[in-house]
Amino acid sequence: MGTKFVLAPDSFKESMTAKEVCEAMEAGIKRAIPDAECIHVPMADGGEGTVQSLIDATGGTLIQKEVTGPLGTPVLAQYGILGDGKTGVIEMASASGIHHVTKETKNPLITTTYGTGELIRDCLERGITEIILGIGGSATNDGGTGMAAALGYRFLDKSGEELPLGGGFLGELERIDASGVLQGLQDLRILVASDVTNPLCGERGASVVFGPQKGATPKMVEVLDRNLWHYSRIVKEQLGIEVADVPGAGAAGGLGAGLLAFTKATMKKGIEIMIEYTGLKEKLRQADYCFTGEGGIDFQTKFGKAPYGVAQAAKSVNPRLKVIALAGYVGQDVETLYEEGFDAIFGIVPGASDLESLLARGQENVARTAESIARLLK
Amino acid sequence: MGTKFVLAPDSFKESMTAKEVCEAMEAGIKRAIPDAECIHVPMADGGEGTVQSLIDATGGTLIQKEVTGPLGTPVLAQYGILGDGKTGVIEMASASGIHHVTKETKNPLITTTYGTGELIRDCLERGITEIILGIGGSATNDGGTGMAAALGYRFLDKSGEELPLGGGFLGELERIDASGVLQGLQDLRILVASDVTNPLCGERGASVVFGPQKGATPKMVEVLDRNLWHYSRIVKEQLGIEVADVPGAGAAGGLGAGLLAFTKATMKKGIEIMIEYTGLKEKLRQADYCFTGEGGIDFQTKFGKAPYGVAQAAKSVNPRLKVIALAGYVGQDVETLYEEGFDAIFGIVPGASDLESLLARGQENVARTAESIARLLK
Repeated sequence: MGTKFVLAPDSFKESMTAKEVCEAMEAGIKRAIPDAECIHVPMADGGEGTVQSLIDATGGTLIQKEVTGPLGTPVLAQYGILGDGKTGVIEMASASGIHHVTKETKNPLITTTYGTGELIRDCLERGITEIILGIGGSATNDGGTGMAAALGYRFLDKSGEELPLGGGFLGELERIDASGVLQGLQDLRILVASDVTNPLCGERGASVVFGPQKGATPKMVEVLDRNLWHYSRIVKEQLGIEVADVPGAGAAGGLGAGLLAFTKATMKKGIEIMIEYTGLKEKLRQADYCFTGEGGIDFQTKFGKAPYGVAQAAKSVNPRLKVIALAGYVGQDVETLYEEGFDAIFGIVPGASDLESLLARGQENVARTAESIARLLK
Repeated sequence: MGTKFVLAPDSFKESMTAKEVCEAMEAGIKRAIPDAECIHVPMADGGEGTVQSLIDATGGTLIQKEVTGPLGTPVLAQYGILGDGKTGVIEMASASGIHHVTKETKNPLITTTYGTGELIRDCLERGITEIILGIGGSATNDGGTGMAAALGYRFLDKSGEELPLGGGFLGELERIDASGVLQGLQDLRILVASDVTNPLCGERGASVVFGPQKGATPKMVEVLDRNLWHYSRIVKEQLGIEVADVPGAGAAGGLGAGLLAFTKATMKKGIEIMIEYTGLKEKLRQADYCFTGEGGIDFQTKFGKAPYGVAQAAKSVNPRLKVIALAGYVGQDVETLYEEGFDAIFGIVPGASDLESLLARGQENVARTAESIARLLK
């Protein structure tokens, strides 16, 4: 039997999906070791690429669905159903992400997570029992109220009228009506993939830290933060749930808080979820070598990036298993990763070049580098 | 005892001398394998860097000397004396190279190899018995007559007057007077490092092929080629030596022919000379790994470049010895080198970057890459 390689890279952003990286690695390795056995485990860290990688890793399917975008207009979103048929995987950004707004239209007073709620509802209606929800890249600051509204919650003002969508109106919130909540929501487990530990409000809260990049002026930040305070008090009074200070409640404009308040949600680091759901450790147990990689690798990689998680998983399974990383950009203090489970880190860039050409030739460069590495290992 | 690495790279042009590449490789290897034994054998291919590398490899000394430049004005040239104290090493370009002329002043009718002859004379006067002479990068087209003149030969016209220096006047050559030749020249062995196989004259000759890059107009090329024909006929008649059709006679504007006619010269490929004089094969015999490299590596590397010679030497000594090459630029069809003795070829570039920054950070990038390789090998 041939040498066994587990290939567990993240995507190389703007160049290759994680699966394409796996394919390029295998092509190079096989040129050196024709009978090599290559097990593809495309990775992600809970951000962009999570749906694609989990679908690729488990043989799942991609679902397209038109939902309400962050500005209230329709957008075409997508999510995945894993190979087990029971687990959904959603990136909130697909429905409610910052890429759906422009410099001119971005306005966190009115942007809504309603579309993300619609995706969750679509999962429920298909009999999904668990959802992995990546919550990076949001355009919103609504505390997850839009998401909850799509699942049947009603957010009412003092005259009993439903509030308009958006964090700018939460100051008027008087009552949360849960009477129309979708059947089955209480049994749906939601695993929230988030590396953000910010609380809902205050100096480190959603509005102050992430509001400006979503288009909030200083005045808007003040309004949004005050509104989220008010919202968290109502949630506590009426639902008995304390969300304001939970680490991660401030993720995605407070969607973290909303998920904790209105669904059966647990928060976990994105890469840990990936490792669990792809069965990476089981696959590593039989491996002779582990390849990983990402578009860029530097000292920050150890703060929860996918290759770091892969390296840690590999060493936990077998301390002698060599972990080899490829990257389009090998950055500052990369040597510090040698103490974090990485054995070798190689750039794939063939020479002086502009970024555009490099992005276009990613697979060729990965394959060539993987080939040379495999030739050393054989 | 530690793992033994032979480090035999060429220079990375405009970035590092071969010795500096060795130092960077060792720095990286030692970070991975602190007790590694690294044997430095800086290489060159007979072109730029040959003097430096042979001095570095043998513990020789560098000599500076003011000589006649290609345009007749003084230039500060340098050459080396190897560690044995008996062998000189000269790059003709140091005295007579194209870098000594400008776009405005380049004129192969008048440029001369006289300075190269002065360096040879200086060697003779110091008791040197053998010279390694690299003849790339010339500004000249004088058939080596300037070089010979500096060694005592006189080139006379029909009235017995000495000709002016330069290939443009050789049409007037009537007689070669060897009566004043320097004592000892007949015993001085000159090993000419040249990969050029062009003949002296004609379509593949010095003037037609290399004249234009030295500033020759089509009209000048015609004159220069005709003059070299005439010159070769006089050499044959008066010295009984046939140089016109000898492969390599056309190297360096016919300096090849001049060396064959007026000195005890042998031509050999630059890399073969380097391998012999550095004792590379002996050093490889004890090695566990061989590192090589050059600024750029591609399919053309197999046409006599230093890393190719090193790879071939390594495999001839020990077919199982792994040869690992590093390069700033990994070019077209580099995979074809895997059939030529190379085991692995790695680029050292850390990401999208302009050439200037890469040239400035060569040692850092070599060290980082060598470290990762060594971590795989340990």
